Amino acid sequence: MRTNRVRDAWAAGRAAINGWCGIPSSFSAELMAHFGWDSLVVDMQHGVVDYQMMVSMLQGISTTEVTPMVRVPWNDPAYIMKALDGGAYGIICPMINSRSECEKFVGACRYAPAGYRSSGPIRAALYGGADYQEKANDTIIAFAMIETVEAIDNLDEILSTPGLDAVYVGPSDLSITMGLPPGLDKADERMIANLKKILDGCRRHGVKAGIHTGSPAYAKRMIEMGYNFTTIMGDAALLRMAGSQVVQQMREGAPAAAAKPTGPY
Amino acid sequence: MRTNRVRDAWAAGRAAINGWCGIPSSFSAELMAHFGWDSLVVDMQHGVVDYQMMVSMLQGISTTEVTPMVRVPWNDPAYIMKALDGGAYGIICPMINSRSECEKFVGACRYAPAGYRSSGPIRAALYGGADYQEKANDTIIAFAMIETVEAIDNLDEILSTPGLDAVYVGPSDLSITMGLPPGLDKADERMIANLKKILDGCRRHGVKAGIHTGSPAYAKRMIEMGYNFTTIMGDAALLRMAGSQVVQQMREGAPAAAAKPTGPY
Amino acid sequence: MRTNRVRDAWAAGRAAINGWCGIPSSFSAELMAHFGWDSLVVDMQHGVVDYQMMVSMLQGISTTEVTPMVRVPWNDPAYIMKALDGGAYGIICPMINSRSECEKFVGACRYAPAGYRSSGPIRAALYGGADYQEKANDTIIAFAMIETVEAIDNLDEILSTPGLDAVYVGPSDLSITMGLPPGLDKADERMIANLKKILDGCRRHGVKAGIHTGSPAYAKRMIEMGYNFTTIMGDAALLRMAGSQVVQQMREGAPAAAAKPTGPY
Amino acid sequence: MRTNRVRDAWAAGRAAINGWCGIPSSFSAELMAHFGWDSLVVDMQHGVVDYQMMVSMLQGISTTEVTPMVRVPWNDPAYIMKALDGGAYGIICPMINSRSECEKFVGACRYAPAGYRSSGPIRAALYGGADYQEKANDTIIAFAMIETVEAIDNLDEILSTPGLDAVYVGPSDLSITMGLPPGLDKADERMIANLKKILDGCRRHGVKAGIHTGSPAYAKRMIEMGYNFTTIMGDAALLRMAGSQVVQQMREGAPAAAAKPTGPY
Amino acid sequence: MRTNRVRDAWAAGRAAINGWCGIPSSFSAELMAHFGWDSLVVDMQHGVVDYQMMVSMLQGISTTEVTPMVRVPWNDPAYIMKALDGGAYGIICPMINSRSECEKFVGACRYAPAGYRSSGPIRAALYGGADYQEKANDTIIAFAMIETVEAIDNLDEILSTPGLDAVYVGPSDLSITMGLPPGLDKADERMIANLKKILDGCRRHGVKAGIHTGSPAYAKRMIEMGYNFTTIMGDAALLRMAGSQVVQQMREGAPAAAAKPTGPY
Amino acid sequence: MRTNRVRDAWAAGRAAINGWCGIPSSFSAELMAHFGWDSLVVDMQHGVVDYQMMVSMLQGISTTEVTPMVRVPWNDPAYIMKALDGGAYGIICPMINSRSECEKFVGACRYAPAGYRSSGPIRAALYGGADYQEKANDTIIAFAMIETVEAIDNLDEILSTPGLDAVYVGPSDLSITMGLPPGLDKADERMIANLKKILDGCRRHGVKAGIHTGSPAYAKRMIEMGYNFTTIMGDAALLRMAGSQVVQQMREGAPAAAAKPTGPY
Repeated sequence: MRTNRVRDAWAAGRAAINGWCGIPSSFSAELMAHFGWDSLVVDMQHGVVDYQMMVSMLQGISTTEVTPMVRVPWNDPAYIMKALDGGAYGIICPMINSRSECEKFVGACRYAPAGYRSSGPIRAALYGGADYQEKANDTIIAFAMIETVEAIDNLDEILSTPGLDAVYVGPSDLSITMGLPPGLDKADERMIANLKKILDGCRRHGVKAGIHTGSPAYAKRMIEMGYNFTTIMGDAALLRMAGSQVVQQMREGAPAAAAKPTGPY
Repeated sequence: MRTNRVRDAWAAGRAAINGWCGIPSSFSAELMAHFGWDSLVVDMQHGVVDYQMMVSMLQGISTTEVTPMVRVPWNDPAYIMKALDGGAYGIICPMINSRSECEKFVGACRYAPAGYRSSGPIRAALYGGADYQEKANDTIIAFAMIETVEAIDNLDEILSTPGLDAVYVGPSDLSITMGLPPGLDKADERMIANLKKILDGCRRHGVKAGIHTGSPAYAKRMIEMGYNFTTIMGDAALLRMAGSQVVQQMREGAPAAAAKPTGPY
Repeated sequence: MRTNRVRDAWAAGRAAINGWCGIPSSFSAELMAHFGWDSLVVDMQHGVVDYQMMVSMLQGISTTEVTPMVRVPWNDPAYIMKALDGGAYGIICPMINSRSECEKFVGACRYAPAGYRSSGPIRAALYGGADYQEKANDTIIAFAMIETVEAIDNLDEILSTPGLDAVYVGPSDLSITMGLPPGLDKADERMIANLKKILDGCRRHGVKAGIHTGSPAYAKRMIEMGYNFTTIMGDAALLRMAGSQVVQQMREGAPAAAAKPTGPY
Repeated sequence: MRTNRVRDAWAAGRAAINGWCGIPSSFSAELMAHFGWDSLVVDMQHGVVDYQMMVSMLQGISTTEVTPMVRVPWNDPAYIMKALDGGAYGIICPMINSRSECEKFVGACRYAPAGYRSSGPIRAALYGGADYQEKANDTIIAFAMIETVEAIDNLDEILSTPGLDAVYVGPSDLSITMGLPPGLDKADERMIANLKKILDGCRRHGVKAGIHTGSPAYAKRMIEMGYNFTTIMGDAALLRMAGSQVVQQMREGAPAAAAKPTGPY
Repeated sequence: MRTNRVRDAWAAGRAAINGWCGIPSSFSAELMAHFGWDSLVVDMQHGVVDYQMMVSMLQGISTTEVTPMVRVPWNDPAYIMKALDGGAYGIICPMINSRSECEKFVGACRYAPAGYRSSGPIRAALYGGADYQEKANDTIIAFAMIETVEAIDNLDEILSTPGLDAVYVGPSDLSITMGLPPGLDKADERMIANLKKILDGCRRHGVKAGIHTGSPAYAKRMIEMGYNFTTIMGDAALLRMAGSQVVQQMREGAPAAAAKPTGPY
Repeated sequence: MRTNRVRDAWAAGRAAINGWCGIPSSFSAELMAHFGWDSLVVDMQHGVVDYQMMVSMLQGISTTEVTPMVRVPWNDPAYIMKALDGGAYGIICPMINSRSECEKFVGACRYAPAGYRSSGPIRAALYGGADYQEKANDTIIAFAMIETVEAIDNLDEILSTPGLDAVYVGPSDLSITMGLPPGLDKADERMIANLKKILDGCRRHGVKAGIHTGSPAYAKRMIEMGYNFTTIMGDAALLRMAGSQVVQQMREGAPAAAAKPTGPY
């Protein structure tokens, strides 16, 4: 079975650098796969992406050596199993707030007896190889999202779920449940304290720690803190950053055009 | 009929700042439309875009005030008329090398008696308004691409084509036919001389001058030279620029990952 | 944040006139948006529409000032949150039969602490504006469908759910559970009594009342009765009505063709 | 080979009643196929339809007995042959103004030696049957559009093209080239005279006559005049007619909403 | 209402021969429908197929007399009801392990009072006919998948669920939960014993028995054993079988090419 | 630049074994790429494939080492250049009957000064590598289809076109123009004589010879005769062969079902 480059990075003792795809296009996904990431996540939760598009995007990514993963919209076995059958080598699952939710999630990622994933890796075996069903349980990475104060309260019982490989911190939702405004890369002490708390929990339980960030600087800070997996912006945010900058450079000293950048991306 | 913001810019005596969409996605097109461009071109020639996708992308752009235009794949009335019926407010047509090619192109953009465009603006009248057919000939902009030395040799006869609004210089193809390597933003004196020659021709014939560029700096230089319409990179190039930069910042001082940026975008 | 025209109508003391889109096409959705509705609902439940198509249809609608909304297929946070992130300004949720179902639904429509909607309005913030996350909870309309006798039995506990804005009556399913044949615009006294009962409940709890109808006459009757939001047929029904009528006019006095209209639309 | 119901109608001495599909959706095409038309044309010229969508729409139509046909965007063998391979039982070709254009068109519709259609009816043989290649030349209907004064001037040489089955009058484009405003169902005497002139030519040459109309009344008038094939509005026009009427009925006596119907559809 | 050919086969005392579609294409589905199956299942669970694609595939199948059915991804009313509204004449539901799961499944397939299916058969009534809602409960076939040892333990309570028409054995998942390697067509005595046990249960409860197989030989064996419905490979497996064989024949005696068949399909 | 495996096979002195994709699906294309072909052609002429689908299919193929190529619908630079920009490593062009047609075709495949291909390899450079534009002219293979007696009459002038790499014989169209019924794998002496004549011409001019066949046996015969490139059936034909066989095996001794295989695929 083709190896998982995120596991390879971890085995080599380094953090994995992850990219993020929310633009619904197999071409933009293929393009993203040429920038040097270890892995790319197709975001089915907040990205503009459904299942058929996700498959096309995994194909685009699979023209390169970058490891493809998927964030599913919700903790639902239908989404998780279909993403895995489509060839995802890792699943990021939103809103894991309790042990039972985590067990439901991890079980959907594993063939029996480790879990209850249904057999039928129609594209996954094309991508992974003929021994896919034999080795999938040890290759696929299950990331549980920690993104509420409730999850932090239940940290140990979540992290001790058998088969859980990693957590993935969603700082924007975590901020909201902490009473902070939404957003990434918070320097707020309470946020930093929580990020350390999660990391400490991961170390206690032998679980890897991942996090979503909005800049290389913050991502590097997280890696220095001990995080093993960092996302640095998504395709939509990268495109906005570059496009807005170019237009701004053109508009300097020129009369303003009507359309202005809006929204948080 | 809804106005054409490129014509508005020209009427106000300023150059129009144009964006470029080659990623096949109505979402990335809508996103691009929020960065502050005067107009956006959906590229059906070298972009990964066909007709059905083009319509979706025009819809995405039309959620804003940015004027939508299309580069067609070739000087073929089927492409031109379908792009116009889909709601394009301007057509950029590749490889116009002679007067007869230019007449064929311009005629496809205009209803009789000015041309031979067929009547049936199915989406264009939704976008433009109930008086579309009455005012379309005066609102749509026809851009003939000048991108070979042959076209420069035939400049006056091309530029004097009745109804031609503007030219659009394709510097990469022009470079190749000049014996230079492909690419944008050439400082080569022969290229600059040709760009001036085209501009002078445009002024002689009352035709606007547009050009494709790869940076705000070069685009500003072109505007200073007298160009009226500049494109500054496309969505794919912008995404590559931002994505590669972010990964490079993450990789500094770190062991290299396998996938490296490739290609000219 | 862009205003919600349904809320505007309500603030102005008038009922909102709503259209309905079940044909899977961003073009037919854009076309529908030019007929004069206050709002348009993309129907993901019984319409032939999934998520990726829904986004395209929302884009088509968003080329106009008509407010876009979505009926989700089921009371599932994945559908609700993805529809909201895609830019829906209201959610109609089927089969709300109890307080706990209604709380689950309303919570999925609101950011914490009012609910548990996850943060990431990728297209919604493009459409709504940069202050989307701040104002979304007060702008989005949550419609709970009342379409069973069980729901009517539980009316007060459903209507008193904190944050519920409105109900939406599904008369065809309500008919079936009442032992009547399926269909719209019933004059049956028991149905009228139930429609009044729902309306009275809405008034008691300060909740708006909406209903699906099959004709302007019935919709007007409902508005006169006090309903605040009426749908009058969907795109498929409108097309069938007009198309069947035209063919019938052509066939009068002519030998019949083989294909005949079928089905309830 | 499955029969062509338009030829069946003609053999039975009656005019065929044709519907028109410009909305890009296999579902709306399937819906249209249930209203009682003899045939349905998928409009690739002014409809929002490209090849992949056309195939899906032909599939939708082919779930019924209605005969599927296609209007191609232009007189180009690539479009014509692909539409035929996709299962179209008739081709309407725009802008046939001369004998040579007509020969080019008709030749693309016929296998050698009658023409130069390439062999490979990938879906057509599924739809038509195992003897498709043997009988296609006699089953497919080739309609040349007469829609300019130039075409009327060249009527006899066009109509005498070997293998031409029928003409299809495009009244809106014909109006424009006659100096009239665009539009259908013209009562102008010069238009009526031209419609008779075309019909007389068809009778001289044993060619069937078809025409695009905007109402049952005009279509019936054309049939009474002798036309053998009439289209009565398309799906977009039908939807607009019904939708605008419903909204207008709702708005009577009510304060106006902002969005108003626009455009000619 | 159009009849269900699987029920017709059963009424005639013979087993139904079923095909399986996992390739996401309405054309390959239409092609499959010409091979002589009684019915075709569009596989939304392990096939590369989501809802919008499923509808297109049902349209492709519906150009023939072959009965269309759907395997849903999971026991979720949203999937089941949308597949039925799209025109499926049978639903195969994965992982039914208990009576309550079976009741939830069967209820989603039936209109009240037999179940809780919501009313709105937008395409189903086009396909089935105007009396669809009246007859659907008796025409649609509900297949519960038996694919775990847990389900076999709970066999009688599952099989006695009111309204359950049939079971469908998933031998690969059943193998895994029995401690056998995944795969089809097992000769293992324990498997044969379980297949007989399921069949005996079906006979006790008047429920039909279906099974997924990987070859005509095994399918015939199952029919001889008493099974009433057999699938023999899917489109992807058929294509792999034929394609690999052809390449192997070409490569015999020739130097090997680099790409080799992989995976279980 | 990534190498072309067809050129590699030729350099190694062996014939290339080519597969053929006409089913419009990136998944079936990816599946086909795992059977062991040297190259795969996406058929835009008779396949059910347009440009946007072609790109997806090239992505599916590009997840493997199999070389992707495209048959364009017609000798039109728009199709050829867009296929090349999409990443095709070879173009098969239909109906080349003269020297001027061949020059037009070959020129569209080559950058100046060898031809007139426009610069902008948006996906091709991702697939091929950063030196794509420098090496494309020497890597891309231009195949002119010889499929009429007229082409055979003009063989030497076609084959001597500068830059032509290979021919591709279309035996079905060639049969029709020879007065034979359409079809592949003809044993007719006149056909064999023509196939030899074409091969002899290729040898005279240093051009490679390819041919479409319907079986490994005929393909091997062609290779023995000297052909350098053979296609053996397409995906649709392979699927039909396997599917029909399986159903036939199931039906042996059983009452026939209604649907029967039809058509030539």
